[in-house]
Amino acid sequence: MLRILVSNDDGIDSKGIYVLAKKLKELGDVSVVAPRTEQSAVGHAITMKTPVRVTKYYVNDEFFGYAVNGTPADCVKMGIKNIMHEMPDIVISGINNGSNAAINIIYSGTVSAAREAAIMDVPSIAVSVASHDATDFEYASELATELAGEVLDKGITPGTLLNVNVPNKPREEIKGIQITKQGLSKWDDRFEERIDPYGKKYYWLTGKIIDLDKDLHCDHFALRNDYATITPIHFDLTDYEMYKKIMDWNIKSFRA
Amino acid sequence: MLRILVSNDDGIDSKGIYVLAKKLKELGDVSVVAPRTEQSAVGHAITMKTPVRVTKYYVNDEFFGYAVNGTPADCVKMGIKNIMHEMPDIVISGINNGSNAAINIIYSGTVSAAREAAIMDVPSIAVSVASHDATDFEYASELATELAGEVLDKGITPGTLLNVNVPNKPREEIKGIQITKQGLSKWDDRFEERIDPYGKKYYWLTGKIIDLDKDLHCDHFALRNDYATITPIHFDLTDYEMYKKIMDWNIKSFRA
Repeated sequence: MLRILVSNDDGIDSKGIYVLAKKLKELGDVSVVAPRTEQSAVGHAITMKTPVRVTKYYVNDEFFGYAVNGTPADCVKMGIKNIMHEMPDIVISGINNGSNAAINIIYSGTVSAAREAAIMDVPSIAVSVASHDATDFEYASELATELAGEVLDKGITPGTLLNVNVPNKPREEIKGIQITKQGLSKWDDRFEERIDPYGKKYYWLTGKIIDLDKDLHCDHFALRNDYATITPIHFDLTDYEMYKKIMDWNIKSFRA
Repeated sequence: MLRILVSNDDGIDSKGIYVLAKKLKELGDVSVVAPRTEQSAVGHAITMKTPVRVTKYYVNDEFFGYAVNGTPADCVKMGIKNIMHEMPDIVISGINNGSNAAINIIYSGTVSAAREAAIMDVPSIAVSVASHDATDFEYASELATELAGEVLDKGITPGTLLNVNVPNKPREEIKGIQITKQGLSKWDDRFEERIDPYGKKYYWLTGKIIDLDKDLHCDHFALRNDYATITPIHFDLTDYEMYKKIMDWNIKSFRA
């Protein structure tokens, strides 16, 4: 029996994790460990300076999980080390409301939960539907389940995970699946200034995406053109070309 | 006159940012925009669901900066878009208390501030001293200043930043500088269980580092052997080898 750990960043009471966990039960034993409250855009934050609590969360007899007052990465550490007490066969994070393509991979809590598993050498998949108002997670949960089987069958490089995005469309309008790279599209954002009822300034982060991807090999572009995307990502951030170039700089002459 | 933006994750009242900003004034105009409170291990979190506030922070006539109740990445966005109103020539983040090598790069707020600048195509450097009890930031601030000059002189790939670590040693004990890759060393961590005064369980994240790096080409190993390290990192997380391998999987047969 496969042991599957499920987490997310939208919180344990989101519809996406409910649909995902239910579907994955066809594949094996499912443990759910997810944030008690929404943790979108927390990136790969972990909780070191405040105590973490765990509570049990039920929806009738249909759904059971552990709710953690921490980040998605916390949930994966907690799930594996303190709740499952053994390595799962696979960790699946999602299904997220909103795409996690191009630069959003960097900010994503959903992806960071899967990446935390990859750091622990556990195969993992992050799954997102490309709308903050998504309500239909059926196709995304099927794709995640199929991919989990494929990952376990074919194997994946330790430290690498699959980041999956699905258009928020009826399945007959999804054109197919593209294997993609992380796109270059990014946010042109700023903090919008407002005045509170007490006359003090405050700010909201806001912005628009700059679409810099021009072909179906890029996750953001493929997703915008109604393809589901699968991007293998890892956590070796070394820029190997720059690594070679810097060897020629005068740095060695700096004296301690 | 160079325009330099300085941020960090230890907070605007930390000694590391004070020493760094003072030293960088030799190079140009310095703007400081940093978190109001410590933001260690927040990764690349950004603040989207709560309002952000900015206050002015002074230390007599010696130090002035903007304190933000947000994350290091927020500070860089706020600094560039709302405070400087123009692109700085370079962003420098630090000087952090505690190393940011190997897997810690993923969790680091210090590195994420510099990475946010890299995303905006601004050259950037993250600087850390390898002890949470570091008090001497002189050599690290000199190295950061020298490197800033080198980056601006030689140029750096857009989207790439330099992650710099310095041993917490008297400078005569620092053996030199190594150009390094991100090491593979990582944490074996878990949540330690405790009972609060009300009889309820709570957890603290704790663990020890597993030293998986065996040569001076790895940041963690070089640092432990008393070298300062310079690792060029970027934010393209694509695993290009796995990208090619997945092309052969049966994924195309999954039907939407």
